[in-house]
Amino acid sequence: MMNEFEFISWLRQVLDRPVGRTGVAVGIGDDMAVIDLPGGKVLLGSDMVIENIHFTFPDAKPEEVGHKALGRCLSDCAAMAGEPVAAIVSVARPPEMPVEILKGVFQGMMQLADRFGCPIVGGDTSHSEKGLVLDVCLLGKCQRNEPTLRRGAKAGDYLYVTGTLGGSILGKHLRFEPKIEQGLWIAEHLPVHAMIDISDGLSSDLGHMCAESRCGAELFSHAVEAAISVDARKLSAKTGKEAMDYAINDGEDFELLAAIGISPSELPDLPENVRLLPIGRIVEESGILMIYPTGRRVEIQAGGYRHF
Amino acid sequence: MMNEFEFISWLRQVLDRPVGRTGVAVGIGDDMAVIDLPGGKVLLGSDMVIENIHFTFPDAKPEEVGHKALGRCLSDCAAMAGEPVAAIVSVARPPEMPVEILKGVFQGMMQLADRFGCPIVGGDTSHSEKGLVLDVCLLGKCQRNEPTLRRGAKAGDYLYVTGTLGGSILGKHLRFEPKIEQGLWIAEHLPVHAMIDISDGLSSDLGHMCAESRCGAELFSHAVEAAISVDARKLSAKTGKEAMDYAINDGEDFELLAAIGISPSELPDLPENVRLLPIGRIVEESGILMIYPTGRRVEIQAGGYRHF
Repeated sequence: MMNEFEFISWLRQVLDRPVGRTGVAVGIGDDMAVIDLPGGKVLLGSDMVIENIHFTFPDAKPEEVGHKALGRCLSDCAAMAGEPVAAIVSVARPPEMPVEILKGVFQGMMQLADRFGCPIVGGDTSHSEKGLVLDVCLLGKCQRNEPTLRRGAKAGDYLYVTGTLGGSILGKHLRFEPKIEQGLWIAEHLPVHAMIDISDGLSSDLGHMCAESRCGAELFSHAVEAAISVDARKLSAKTGKEAMDYAINDGEDFELLAAIGISPSELPDLPENVRLLPIGRIVEESGILMIYPTGRRVEIQAGGYRHF
Repeated sequence: MMNEFEFISWLRQVLDRPVGRTGVAVGIGDDMAVIDLPGGKVLLGSDMVIENIHFTFPDAKPEEVGHKALGRCLSDCAAMAGEPVAAIVSVARPPEMPVEILKGVFQGMMQLADRFGCPIVGGDTSHSEKGLVLDVCLLGKCQRNEPTLRRGAKAGDYLYVTGTLGGSILGKHLRFEPKIEQGLWIAEHLPVHAMIDISDGLSSDLGHMCAESRCGAELFSHAVEAAISVDARKLSAKTGKEAMDYAINDGEDFELLAAIGISPSELPDLPENVRLLPIGRIVEESGILMIYPTGRRVEIQAGGYRHF
């Protein structure tokens, strides 16, 4: 019997065939699909947010659930250096859930939608047998630049993240700011060769970038150390697990990870809302290594969230 | 406490505000949203298909479930006289469901996608607590004509459907053909003022069209009689309920309902794949009436499926 990973591998293979794919520049396997329309490239992607999988009530407020549902899609759009155009929301509500909760969910989405000029233009409503199910589909456009893909990273590129990492479970996963403006600024001002948002965890998402770019990466331990979030350190103090471990493997940071062709010392002045923390570089040999100041080299396994 | 209908009414109101809506030609309230992009108008819409709500296993084969999930979106696109460009599929699978079933679902979708040149370009996979959840989001384009909306029907227009009605529960709801080519042909060759697909039932969907167009409709009983499907008659023979009742109120026929500015005798020759069955006409006064040959006039209440 086929297992889940075999299924996803089968799906990528059958969906990646050329039949009827005129105009599809990038299909399955990036943060969003890229489609060539007569007026330019558009982006299309979706993200599901499901009760008791991606959030639990009452830990999450309804507004935060809505924020997260749309925010995940916006973060994908940021990773493509795209501009959001419009969103579609499908929602399935379990029978016992008060409608007021759904209202809060939509208020959370609309606040974020307004901030990014991304109207919610339609969708579908239905019942669910158990748990709230939200699926947001986002249409984006790339008019100011080419979309930045997971593939394209080159040996010699430096790796940067747009913010600190780890411990998002303490709240950031419900309240993160999608890095739309940051993604656009990076694509317009820097020689960026590949970009992805950190949703599954740095080790997993860097692994995705390396697999698509057919390369490997070295992380500088002292630099990653400097990119550990306050929340990762809080968790570490509580559990005794290393804070570095949370920074490398925690999902849902929703920071951008970019492979850029210039070193930290060559970076131009950054606008106030853009942070770029250097954490390592791209190398030819596959695999991800952590390099310690002593010269010790340790292979990093993808430890983040795996879909399915 | 707010009830469901109040919620949907609230949602339509708050989502229909102008904030950030540059480029949104048509938002909530039609079969798909219409968005103005630099290269032309695009369409965006989504439909959820949920186990034990929209289908049950093993009554439905996995391939049929996939067909239905994508087909519903394609039918919406047909109603807008749009051409499908690409689809995004989000799927949440309950833990106990064999992956083989999911493979069948995607095979059903892909067969339909290939026939309509509409590649599946991405999506999301997740777990569900109970029951299979599929959400398909479709991107369409309108390059050969303006999108046909629910609003725009005028007193004097004749009402046509593209096929017979009722009894889809006997199988058509899983195996219908989305009327993409028919929708395009109608928009290109006839003075169509409004169009919708019959997903909730003729009485409900005609009601939607009339509400959006601020008009009413008269159905000619002998003409509707001639548009009753074989399956509606089969159901009627079994249950004793009138076949006409199934034709008027059953959902998921996925035929197009069009308000066209010419009478049946003025219609040009139709291509082989286009059927247009006249069933009534648009009038100024609100409400939907069934007109019998005797002159009797009976008001029809929306009796089809109501969302939520």
